[in-house]
Amino acid sequence: MSTAPQATTTAAEVKHQKWWGWGEEGITWSHADKPKFAPFVMDKLGVDVNLPAPGAPPLRSFDVPESRLSAELRSTLNILVGPANVVTDDESRVVHAYGKGVRDLVRVRRGNFGRLPDAVVYPGGEADVVAIVDAVVAADGVLIPFGGGSNIVAALEALPDEPRQVISIDLGRMNKVLEIDEQSGLARIQAGVLGPDMEEQLNGAGWTLGHFPDSFIWSTLGGWIATRSSGAQSDKYGDIADITRGLRVVLPGEVLVLRPLPSTSTGPSVREMIIGSEGRLGIITEAWVNVHRLAEVREIQAYFFPDYDSGIKAAEQVITSGARPMLLRVSDANETEFSMANGKQSSRVGHLMSQAIQQVMLRKGWDLTKICLSFIGYEGSVSHVRYTKSLVGKIVRANGGMAVGKGPGTLYDQKKFDIPYIRDFLLDRGIPADVSETSTPWSKVKEVHDETVQRAQEAFDAAGHRGFIMCHLSHSYHSGACQYFTFAISDASETNLRSYDTVKRTIQQSFMEHGGTVSHHHGVGEEHSPWMDQDISPAGVHMQAKLFEAVDPGHHLNPGKIVHEGRPGISANSEDA
Amino acid sequence: MSTAPQATTTAAEVKHQKWWGWGEEGITWSHADKPKFAPFVMDKLGVDVNLPAPGAPPLRSFDVPESRLSAELRSTLNILVGPANVVTDDESRVVHAYGKGVRDLVRVRRGNFGRLPDAVVYPGGEADVVAIVDAVVAADGVLIPFGGGSNIVAALEALPDEPRQVISIDLGRMNKVLEIDEQSGLARIQAGVLGPDMEEQLNGAGWTLGHFPDSFIWSTLGGWIATRSSGAQSDKYGDIADITRGLRVVLPGEVLVLRPLPSTSTGPSVREMIIGSEGRLGIITEAWVNVHRLAEVREIQAYFFPDYDSGIKAAEQVITSGARPMLLRVSDANETEFSMANGKQSSRVGHLMSQAIQQVMLRKGWDLTKICLSFIGYEGSVSHVRYTKSLVGKIVRANGGMAVGKGPGTLYDQKKFDIPYIRDFLLDRGIPADVSETSTPWSKVKEVHDETVQRAQEAFDAAGHRGFIMCHLSHSYHSGACQYFTFAISDASETNLRSYDTVKRTIQQSFMEHGGTVSHHHGVGEEHSPWMDQDISPAGVHMQAKLFEAVDPGHHLNPGKIVHEGRPGISANSEDA
Repeated sequence: MSTAPQATTTAAEVKHQKWWGWGEEGITWSHADKPKFAPFVMDKLGVDVNLPAPGAPPLRSFDVPESRLSAELRSTLNILVGPANVVTDDESRVVHAYGKGVRDLVRVRRGNFGRLPDAVVYPGGEADVVAIVDAVVAADGVLIPFGGGSNIVAALEALPDEPRQVISIDLGRMNKVLEIDEQSGLARIQAGVLGPDMEEQLNGAGWTLGHFPDSFIWSTLGGWIATRSSGAQSDKYGDIADITRGLRVVLPGEVLVLRPLPSTSTGPSVREMIIGSEGRLGIITEAWVNVHRLAEVREIQAYFFPDYDSGIKAAEQVITSGARPMLLRVSDANETEFSMANGKQSSRVGHLMSQAIQQVMLRKGWDLTKICLSFIGYEGSVSHVRYTKSLVGKIVRANGGMAVGKGPGTLYDQKKFDIPYIRDFLLDRGIPADVSETSTPWSKVKEVHDETVQRAQEAFDAAGHRGFIMCHLSHSYHSGACQYFTFAISDASETNLRSYDTVKRTIQQSFMEHGGTVSHHHGVGEEHSPWMDQDISPAGVHMQAKLFEAVDPGHHLNPGKIVHEGRPGISANSEDA
Repeated sequence: MSTAPQATTTAAEVKHQKWWGWGEEGITWSHADKPKFAPFVMDKLGVDVNLPAPGAPPLRSFDVPESRLSAELRSTLNILVGPANVVTDDESRVVHAYGKGVRDLVRVRRGNFGRLPDAVVYPGGEADVVAIVDAVVAADGVLIPFGGGSNIVAALEALPDEPRQVISIDLGRMNKVLEIDEQSGLARIQAGVLGPDMEEQLNGAGWTLGHFPDSFIWSTLGGWIATRSSGAQSDKYGDIADITRGLRVVLPGEVLVLRPLPSTSTGPSVREMIIGSEGRLGIITEAWVNVHRLAEVREIQAYFFPDYDSGIKAAEQVITSGARPMLLRVSDANETEFSMANGKQSSRVGHLMSQAIQQVMLRKGWDLTKICLSFIGYEGSVSHVRYTKSLVGKIVRANGGMAVGKGPGTLYDQKKFDIPYIRDFLLDRGIPADVSETSTPWSKVKEVHDETVQRAQEAFDAAGHRGFIMCHLSHSYHSGACQYFTFAISDASETNLRSYDTVKRTIQQSFMEHGGTVSHHHGVGEEHSPWMDQDISPAGVHMQAKLFEAVDPGHHLNPGKIVHEGRPGISANSEDA
């Protein structure tokens, strides 16, 4: 394996998101061309989105805590990677202090910066990473790896009372597709590459990774691996745990090298220890990943089901049938209603519920308040797509569903990365909105959905605020599926994180009690750690804790993540902590 | 989850293999109806298999070391599981001392019993396992879990100089399919169930696990999980690591409970730490596994390719095509010759090379010494099988191959578990034969095959004995494949394990140097541990070692396996150790 070239770029060329929200400065979402959106929000949350929104205050209005980087460590880091790649200005440190969860944004917009990193360091290659890890460990500092900064489970923030120097290690300069093994369908890629940049490099050679999480624009290969990510097309391409075949990881004092292998029986899987390790076992520098030739045909079809049950049953049967669509998404009635309200007047989604289609539904005896929108995607050769679509079509019809064409699917495909901007649009008006997702066996899919929706409604009531929760089935497997919940609570007060926490905790606890996992693909971080005892049992948490302790006895590597070190049931960064 | 019922059977009802060879007493393999077999062995190894064979001496002719079980521990175990389930007779201890690798059988037939277990204990349920683990750890003893006893990588034997009491914990009474979640395609099954018993219970309800390793008759669910096994039909059903969704495992002082989940992002995968742990992290008592409805259609087609290259290329293209056969096996020219020699005169394999077929091959310009036999299996609905077979047929033809019908495939299906009996037939004549398997990316498949065959031939020459090596491609994945080598060395002397070691080590080292793993599905045990540094890098070995140390600081759980504790490059039980 040849050594990766040292990056010739510097930190200044690494793209970052806004310090106060999702995405790049200047890009925002607007409901101007979506006439049904404002009435929808008024109906569900009692909020008038046409009123002027305060938005985020300027960073200079806050008193940003100073860097505590010692002159000695600064000098060492300057020598190792050059002063241009050791950054300590306020905005950089604030950008690297949190991910983009709603709790992160509420806090940062209020000038609650938590324990800011003392420096952001940008290695240009693996040798730099080795040197940085050695130097920071020698200085008894803390290292937190940073990719696109899109984490929403509090995996990027230092412990609030961390007395040691905190170094954020930003992999953004390590952004190259290094090698493609065309015969094997494998690519060797640096960990710091953002999704679009990576796909551009792969597409140029005729390949794709096929990994498209909602965070795609602002997340990196290393981040996907470190959080055990899953993309919208995982039904075809697999989760990142399936996609990742080889790894290079810098541990304190040594470099782990796992060669690319399709499958192996070499004891407890070290590969699977690194996947999901969220920086606690080392810094991922590059990976060998499965890549696929760009498909001959790609299309996303929209379908309607009379209700969520029918849609879930169809999904189960598609999996059993052996058909393998690349995307299988079924929205519940609430999310379907949201999709309708989010359509442009002129778009085909707007036309979805034309008089003609409504008439067909009514003739079928459907209750229009219960209908569910579904997107099913097909990719591959012409004959594969034809065969799969025909199989799926039969199953949809057998479950009472109807196909409504490619138009809405094309639009969905274009708009699929917009949701975080809508979340920020609401937050500009003080309304916290967030997501929680879980996987369960098929036998628990309906139960965990219905119970979670009901308990979230009860939590909204208990908090004394209106709220809205919606859901879609997002990833399917032989034995079960992931469901993805989005919720908002109409509390714009200064203590709204308390209301948010009540709802979020209720949802997570509902997952636990109805056969679900704490997270299917967002990871654990600090946010989900209180439920780990219930998810993988205390013995499982002990095994993870012992592994972290053994590899990193000095607790230099992103301490406090995954293994809960606070009070049971309450995360360290909640309002009640 | 309801508690599993305590077994009502006793140790006496648990089936075991012969102490001196594979399978049950009385079942042997014969070449009487295979006229080409004896000439084949004479040609390749210079051995006349028609001469009388000495076979194994009776056990009573040996001086079997006595059990060192203390009166105190015996009394404790008797109370915990009843005296009928605490066994210390010579034959039971010898049966549980080794697996069924060729080194195991050569040694045991010579009365070299190694460090025999001092007792074999048969728990009737998880509560018994907890009590046994606690009692043995409290007595500072060593615990080695035992399933079907078919391990071939020295994972079942105690360290030769183990001074502590050694307890073999045989899970054979825990053999029930406890529960089937029909909606999810999941079954909860006890770890000690043997393959055929489990399939009988599942088939009775219309289901199958689809996991058929060559050891199937004499291996257990717990053993498959503990060794990270893969079955012949993994191309459809997945490796055991894919199949296993939930687990219960008894660790010292606690029980790990992992609920069945299709996928989860709860940090480093504890599930994947247990899979492949070979008894070093605890005793697996039950698992939730993916199960599938019995297929509507099942058939195995035979094909011929003009050479191994064409067969490999076809396999690559089948994977890329999106077709998913349940079995894809391509023998190299040597193995094809062996298959021809192993056919009954009256069978259809005998007819494979009828004059008519030979004429077709010759007209195509094929070199008959290079032809390669392939079996490709199809399972599913009538339409799925038709679609898949048609796709595969086109690919076979595009690579110069020809279909020769279902007959040989049916025969292969019936005879697929016979190979270990042929191995013992040769061993009865003093000839050691063994298997080694590896996976590589597709780009290394040809290279690792050709280099390994060449280096094995050089090793035969260096050892001064004739030898034979053959191979088939056995499991395919997106990015690569497993190849399975079988070899024999014509050394019937008292020091033949030294010749065997030379060849085995050469093969394993060739895997390492040509992109392969030390084992795709046989596991590590003690036998493969010397290559782990090269396979997963020293940092990977350290991580495994630290995990074992953290969970089991007293080294009570199957010490010495996976992590190499002897001299580099030489395993502790080799002749040179």
